[in-house]
Amino acid sequence: MADGAVNRQGMVSLVGAGPGDDGLLTAVGAERCLEWADLIVADRLALPAIERWRVRLASRGVEIIDAGKAPGGAGWTQQRIHALLIARAREGKRVVRLKGGDPFIFGRGLEEVQVLEAAGVPWEVIPGLSSVLAAPALAGIALTLRGVASAFHVLTGETGDGGDGLARWREAARLPGTLVVLMGVSGLARVTGGLIQGGMSGDTPCALIERASLPDQRVTVAPLTAL
Amino acid sequence: MADGAVNRQGMVSLVGAGPGDDGLLTAVGAERCLEWADLIVADRLALPAIERWRVRLASRGVEIIDAGKAPGGAGWTQQRIHALLIARAREGKRVVRLKGGDPFIFGRGLEEVQVLEAAGVPWEVIPGLSSVLAAPALAGIALTLRGVASAFHVLTGETGDGGDGLARWREAARLPGTLVVLMGVSGLARVTGGLIQGGMSGDTPCALIERASLPDQRVTVAPLTAL
Repeated sequence: MADGAVNRQGMVSLVGAGPGDDGLLTAVGAERCLEWADLIVADRLALPAIERWRVRLASRGVEIIDAGKAPGGAGWTQQRIHALLIARAREGKRVVRLKGGDPFIFGRGLEEVQVLEAAGVPWEVIPGLSSVLAAPALAGIALTLRGVASAFHVLTGETGDGGDGLARWREAARLPGTLVVLMGVSGLARVTGGLIQGGMSGDTPCALIERASLPDQRVTVAPLTAL
Repeated sequence: MADGAVNRQGMVSLVGAGPGDDGLLTAVGAERCLEWADLIVADRLALPAIERWRVRLASRGVEIIDAGKAPGGAGWTQQRIHALLIARAREGKRVVRLKGGDPFIFGRGLEEVQVLEAAGVPWEVIPGLSSVLAAPALAGIALTLRGVASAFHVLTGETGDGGDGLARWREAARLPGTLVVLMGVSGLARVTGGLIQGGMSGDTPCALIERASLPDQRVTVAPLTAL
């Protein structure tokens, strides 16, 4: 330690960045970024939420690491992110791990917490607006409506975990209530095809929401067959 | 109009208050309450999110109406709330309709929007942290985890709409992934009994989360049979 320096203990704050617009970050989440952090390690989807604060953050000397892509263009591995969080916290840094949406919804936040816990690094979680709910709301779509839908179901459009896919969509087609498919654009044909094969009516009203809350948000409303 | 007064058009902003803690209101939601509103019409569950701002709001002359309960003790009807929102907006007031969690998740927000739309009153929706996601996150519980749960399902513990109840829980017991039951405390025995009768293992790990984010938040973790 340098003369007079306080041997401060480092910590990691997992902050949900919400859907992207910085006004939709929570008050606590904004405070962690703007007043508390020494370092922000951001997912690609979380970067728009702090874009407008670049100057303020730079004037405070906050380092921003875009963990969504490496300088060479390849993606960061989860292991590399874990190692960075632990190393910086052990240096005494206050690290904001800024994640798109909510850290605990399809965000691998719990995996990061488990790793930090095992490494003895103090951590906290600040929830954020998940796009699961915020994207429909911003498009004026309610997931529940009395007498129409009293439940909703959330799944991801990515295959993940080696599931066979089609069986999943057949099962999903029979769920009562509103269906929310996250990350559904890249495999859209597979999702809609699976739902139709699973017995969902081709007339089912659907909305495709891209880049929710951002200036170029796009909402496409169409029946399932036309999506 | 008084001399020099601008004939301002009224508007209603439906703001999601989040789970209760004022730090979990979004930045835009806080701005609407603290800088924009002439009047706040708050649900009971939304009041804690502005409790600490009472003095600031009073100094700005913001009127706060607790629409969760009337002076006489009886609850406000939805119709009375609709009439109030429309009347005040027509007087040129900027009205914040502050709703617990997110306005569009089991919050009747869409019904209010439809009524405002029909009355020709300008409106907007500011999403909020729904307790659907925020309550588990604040209790350190992830709804999804790779290899364990890749989907989650959200339903309400209240019977509503005259559904027969038991059939719903039998169906819910078979859903793959994590089950989130909102407003499940008052009918807890009915919910757990229905799930067990529906075939869900009594050993299924469960958490009961009450008053999420508030100082007296309570989390009970137990197997289904012991809840």
